[in-house]
Amino acid sequence: MSEIRRDPLTNAWIIVAPVRSTRPEELVEMQLPLNYVVPCPFCGGNEDSTPQPSLVLRDTDQHRDGWSVRVVPNKYPAVEFDCQATTEPSGHHPLFESHPLAGAHEVIIESPLHVQSLSELGAQQVFSVFKAYAERLKHWFRQPHVRYAVVFKNVGAAAGASLRHLHSQLLATSLIPPQVASSYERMSDYYLTQHRCLLCDMIAEELQFAKRLVAQTEDFIAYCPFASYLPYLVRVVSRQHQTAFQNQCSDSLAELSLFVRRLIGLLESAYSPVAYNFVIHTRDVSTSDRAGFHWWIDLFPRITKVAGFEWGSGGMINPVAPEKAAAHLRSLDRLRTVAAPAEDFSV
Amino acid sequence: MSEIRRDPLTNAWIIVAPVRSTRPEELVEMQLPLNYVVPCPFCGGNEDSTPQPSLVLRDTDQHRDGWSVRVVPNKYPAVEFDCQATTEPSGHHPLFESHPLAGAHEVIIESPLHVQSLSELGAQQVFSVFKAYAERLKHWFRQPHVRYAVVFKNVGAAAGASLRHLHSQLLATSLIPPQVASSYERMSDYYLTQHRCLLCDMIAEELQFAKRLVAQTEDFIAYCPFASYLPYLVRVVSRQHQTAFQNQCSDSLAELSLFVRRLIGLLESAYSPVAYNFVIHTRDVSTSDRAGFHWWIDLFPRITKVAGFEWGSGGMINPVAPEKAAAHLRSLDRLRTVAAPAEDFSV
Repeated sequence: MSEIRRDPLTNAWIIVAPVRSTRPEELVEMQLPLNYVVPCPFCGGNEDSTPQPSLVLRDTDQHRDGWSVRVVPNKYPAVEFDCQATTEPSGHHPLFESHPLAGAHEVIIESPLHVQSLSELGAQQVFSVFKAYAERLKHWFRQPHVRYAVVFKNVGAAAGASLRHLHSQLLATSLIPPQVASSYERMSDYYLTQHRCLLCDMIAEELQFAKRLVAQTEDFIAYCPFASYLPYLVRVVSRQHQTAFQNQCSDSLAELSLFVRRLIGLLESAYSPVAYNFVIHTRDVSTSDRAGFHWWIDLFPRITKVAGFEWGSGGMINPVAPEKAAAHLRSLDRLRTVAAPAEDFSV
Repeated sequence: MSEIRRDPLTNAWIIVAPVRSTRPEELVEMQLPLNYVVPCPFCGGNEDSTPQPSLVLRDTDQHRDGWSVRVVPNKYPAVEFDCQATTEPSGHHPLFESHPLAGAHEVIIESPLHVQSLSELGAQQVFSVFKAYAERLKHWFRQPHVRYAVVFKNVGAAAGASLRHLHSQLLATSLIPPQVASSYERMSDYYLTQHRCLLCDMIAEELQFAKRLVAQTEDFIAYCPFASYLPYLVRVVSRQHQTAFQNQCSDSLAELSLFVRRLIGLLESAYSPVAYNFVIHTRDVSTSDRAGFHWWIDLFPRITKVAGFEWGSGGMINPVAPEKAAAHLRSLDRLRTVAAPAEDFSV
């Protein structure tokens, strides 16, 4: 029997339809060939191909190009700052409502080497990448016009990447996207009425139920949410209540970076090589209604396609029950944990 | 300058970001190879490969297989009817809300020939296809448990098709998807407060503004909506206020079928061969709050991919301003209208 489920975080309603997963064509390998640009603008040595960096990390001296992570403005930005930045509506017609959208769009280049997946990075390097996320989020949230910022990663053409070289993107905007604003409101309402954090309550339930858990560390848990909008979606949350991803201590950030790399490794064991995305949902800590917000990361392989029904109904059909996906990923994690070599690195 | 726009029909907020469209990798050909199943289960002569049909149209005698359109149950249904069909919640935990979802999932096989796009059909055949949509929608809306039904088409792997042979799908469910229910409410509220139909008012504005119009016939107009959620999205609406797509007269349905075929031809001229979807948004006429609803069709090529930002923010980034897409499609339509041969067919 199919079921429709609600995610209280996003208010999305998801159809879980396990019969669909028996369709032989449904779960397909989605790693498509990507344009191979020569020379690759992100590779070490080709720094002239990108705009001036806004951040360069040189934590390690293992790369001959002298940097480990570079952050540069996106040459084809979805949003830009200009002097007319305003939040006044562009037009006043009730049927054609619009607002100018100012902001910034950056690319985080995550290695001078031409690698494609975060799972290919060493421990020190993946930690540098997460430090860059935190630094740039802090930077943009300090700007007076910025009300929203998000870091997201697209790996593989099916996940929306246009270049192969490992990178993420940061988008900061002058308006909170309306769907995001609704989710802030729901979390805030829950906090005001229940005196607890919605996400803290949800992970307490997940820990007790256990069947949707994927993996845990001292500070973090990963699980397949009850109302996963895509198959094999993994949600990563801190055990402690924290509003802002970017304000974690260095030890926590290092632990998280390795944990996310491990989870990507699991998805790649299940469907290798697989296109995937992750999205860091975080908030500026300076807002007064922040207390009820708790950051999280959604990580998901792109093994199905959004088709006519989803566009028509606004709802997703997930052909794999999250309980089943979690069991599969847990079993892969047990195998890999036994086989993994130790890695040294410093925080 | 980028802009965020609201679609009053769907309440979706869309970022229109024209700078993105200059990115060379963004608008790519998305027609991927599809599994070629031999023998194709939908081809004339292979009727035994599919379940017993719920409808067979034999309007023309031009096909040796004796049918022009066959409708069969989907072998891998997203929803199914069973004796426990209920709308009671499955669980009572406030954080894990779910409802069983009963329904039906059919495949409309749109030719005995192994063609892929609706644009490859003759006039008589495309009319038969639309007659099948209307008949099956009427059938499912008559069933006491059905509260929602949608017809959608996925052409090409990038649009979510798993088989090449031309077909559409019909999904009928025991619950109205929550996002759809909100759009019903907005249209109903508008009707109660303004005493007019929201979509009728919108098309009146589009006709006056003219810059987003794509094409028109006696009974229908096609335009790129102000807040198009995908580039080159074309919305097809009847000039007269009509609640239910399926209750049009035969002449109208014939005109509409040719109009949709013409619009698909335009998208294929712009990006040939292109993956595309269309979705028929319609309602059961027997509901009491129906008066404010007006059916429409959204037709869109799949030339961009949903990436991390869209999943994270719940909002789409459209790299092509609808005004520009409409101008492009209008110019292609002028060229094609001059070149098109006349076709005879009977209603």
